[in-house]
Amino acid sequence: MSQVLENLKEYMDPLNEEQIKGVVQGLSVPELLVVWDMLNDEESLRIFLHLDQEARSNLMMELPTPEQERLLQTLSVRDSRDLLDYMEPDDLTDLIQNLSPEVRTAVWNNLSEEARREMEFLLRFDEDDAAGLMTPRYVAVRAELTVAQALAFVRKVMNDMEMIYYVYVVDQLKRLIGVVSLRQLLSARDNQKISGIMTQQVISVREETDQEQTARVLEENGLIALPVVDKINRILGIVTFDDVIEVIREEQTEDIYKMGALGGDTKSYLETGIFGLVWKRLPWLVILLLTGTITTNVLHGYEGLLMSAAFLTLFIPVITQTGGNTGTQSATLMIRGLATGEIRFKDVGRVLIRELAVSAIIGFATGLIIFARGVFLPPGIPWHQGIAVAASLSCVVVFSTVLGALVPMGLSRMGVDPTVAAGPLMSTLIDVTGLTIYFEVSKRILGL
Amino acid sequence: MSQVLENLKEYMDPLNEEQIKGVVQGLSVPELLVVWDMLNDEESLRIFLHLDQEARSNLMMELPTPEQERLLQTLSVRDSRDLLDYMEPDDLTDLIQNLSPEVRTAVWNNLSEEARREMEFLLRFDEDDAAGLMTPRYVAVRAELTVAQALAFVRKVMNDMEMIYYVYVVDQLKRLIGVVSLRQLLSARDNQKISGIMTQQVISVREETDQEQTARVLEENGLIALPVVDKINRILGIVTFDDVIEVIREEQTEDIYKMGALGGDTKSYLETGIFGLVWKRLPWLVILLLTGTITTNVLHGYEGLLMSAAFLTLFIPVITQTGGNTGTQSATLMIRGLATGEIRFKDVGRVLIRELAVSAIIGFATGLIIFARGVFLPPGIPWHQGIAVAASLSCVVVFSTVLGALVPMGLSRMGVDPTVAAGPLMSTLIDVTGLTIYFEVSKRILGL
Repeated sequence: MSQVLENLKEYMDPLNEEQIKGVVQGLSVPELLVVWDMLNDEESLRIFLHLDQEARSNLMMELPTPEQERLLQTLSVRDSRDLLDYMEPDDLTDLIQNLSPEVRTAVWNNLSEEARREMEFLLRFDEDDAAGLMTPRYVAVRAELTVAQALAFVRKVMNDMEMIYYVYVVDQLKRLIGVVSLRQLLSARDNQKISGIMTQQVISVREETDQEQTARVLEENGLIALPVVDKINRILGIVTFDDVIEVIREEQTEDIYKMGALGGDTKSYLETGIFGLVWKRLPWLVILLLTGTITTNVLHGYEGLLMSAAFLTLFIPVITQTGGNTGTQSATLMIRGLATGEIRFKDVGRVLIRELAVSAIIGFATGLIIFARGVFLPPGIPWHQGIAVAASLSCVVVFSTVLGALVPMGLSRMGVDPTVAAGPLMSTLIDVTGLTIYFEVSKRILGL
Repeated sequence: MSQVLENLKEYMDPLNEEQIKGVVQGLSVPELLVVWDMLNDEESLRIFLHLDQEARSNLMMELPTPEQERLLQTLSVRDSRDLLDYMEPDDLTDLIQNLSPEVRTAVWNNLSEEARREMEFLLRFDEDDAAGLMTPRYVAVRAELTVAQALAFVRKVMNDMEMIYYVYVVDQLKRLIGVVSLRQLLSARDNQKISGIMTQQVISVREETDQEQTARVLEENGLIALPVVDKINRILGIVTFDDVIEVIREEQTEDIYKMGALGGDTKSYLETGIFGLVWKRLPWLVILLLTGTITTNVLHGYEGLLMSAAFLTLFIPVITQTGGNTGTQSATLMIRGLATGEIRFKDVGRVLIRELAVSAIIGFATGLIIFARGVFLPPGIPWHQGIAVAASLSCVVVFSTVLGALVPMGLSRMGVDPTVAAGPLMSTLIDVTGLTIYFEVSKRILGL
């Protein structure tokens, strides 16, 4: 990589345009992004102009918004129009929605009539639905055509299409009645009718299908594209695999944010302002803080116990942390199982038995460790106090493991996304319940 | 969905085979999986036999291992051979690797000579590399061919190929020298030479490229398939978009596991034994527990302070939890930024400034809340004690936010996956440091 860059810097000399071109065209988009970062504005523009439309379009979609805007403003009207015309309507819609109002107006004015019409059609749908992902540039034919006619039609229109590898078959009302892959077309005889070779059971999604569900359908059927239909089965557009990959990535970020106690959108970190970042973090923190202060009441309630057995204070953080960790572990396993469809609500009995068995072993092991730690390392508490701490930690571990498994299953049953249960919410819940268990069990063992 | 199922149950009657067929063929794989779960062994076999090879193969890959084994043992030798011959070699390799030894031997003996040869080739490569994802069923032609000859060749071989939409161009040593899409072939004139229309700069990955990097390259270049080459640029196979989607899903599970303090493989929950589940959880718990017990020493060291200011004990869990949450939040943002390539190590200065500003605001807000909580709600501490608690919480928040941002950047700089920093490790680290800050700041404010 650094080799490539050194070569590029060396070639950045007016005499060597051909050589720059050679180097630049061999780079993939991720490589271009690295190089981009290390060049000044003029150099990066020169590189951009050496790319073909395909690479320009892919690179444009990957650049951060400020860079997109800078580029769109520096490109000549003609280069910019060529690029915008080349871009897929769904990508273009995404791009335009993120631009600042001034740049957006300039781009809009530079669009061809047809591109504007397509965008107006796409902007009618909800971003998070199947329809929000689709492109209207698919190939559709009538079932009465012969294979030869259909192939000729594909060849005629294909320069305007995003995806030509599936040809959809529609009736006079544009209702989807079949699909035939380009592969099937190529292997059929020229005079066969489309109706004779098409697959009649077309896997499709409705316009209002959630985008994550849409991704699952494409993925589990191994399709390159998936048609989106309205309620009377008329085809509106297609969702292609690259849009699905983007949805999966987004979902990934959202899940990780939920586990990391972050709210709000998944906008890029460096592009979000200070107050945007505060807004993303503060609401969750406040909720967790308010819930967490219940521990203050719990500790206040056991002040008498803590007076007569001061050593219990020493283990408070270890108890809450270990309870939180075990709860988060089982919640995480449930959430993944629920997300992949492997675990269902009807498995609740099996899950409970498994989690009880696992937590008994883990509870015993962690109890043993804390006993050894308490008795043999400073401050070195007497062994009967060690037993009290160990036994109560074991109880906390069993309780929080089971709680961690049941909460996600319950949330999912109620139709709430269970991911939220894996993060700090679980630890906070367990802080409150775990401390109560800790004090009650210790009190009984110590006979106080 | 339940409608579909009711219909199915009703049709499950020997007279209605045609109707079952009609219903079943209209179902997508996710729908089939739901139905599958609710039928007995005989019913599910009947449904399976009504599917076409494509759907059988897709469904087979999605079923849990015990179901796969049951099916492979119940299918007739002929049905089983047809299915295995139909499956893509890379899927078949994955399937066979997960089977128990007896079933595996039976399947292996049932494979065609060619399938065995392909599998032996694929099994040479590491599962986690680009080569571990590839299929050898791609189309390759020589540059000297004309478009008409190349198209004729594609049509001749396409039934054995996984992907025919890109045709790779190789020299006499099988070195990759170009690529031409089926689209380009269809729009070119019949007598043009492949060398004249091919794209010479082929985006490819090396056999030893990590699978996640491979996924990024395919994704960012919007490709349906990506060629895998050896060190002298000979083509070994291609990785297709569906394998990439699987890699991204796996990566997603791994990240969530790391944040949830889970180790080990990402095998399904219900299929893992009790001791497998313990093994997945216990190692991390023990590490965290041992690290966490340092808090015992910290608390022991401040026993004198806690005697003279007992109210400080009441806020220990709130302090550690809030510190952990703020640290996890900034770590999560960094990890996503680093993973998407938006944040690089050189941004460390900018990140530091932003995190300081954000944490100052959050520290002030959370301090205010804890002050109000401490002073106005039971047990109701005096306001100067409330100030001590609030000020030290603010310091903990600022410190842990900055720590949360710096640790992932440091890990990533050292070449370690930073995801591990978001989970419980961060909370445990902050328990130790946060308590020290809490006691030191309070001591000074209270003048003890």
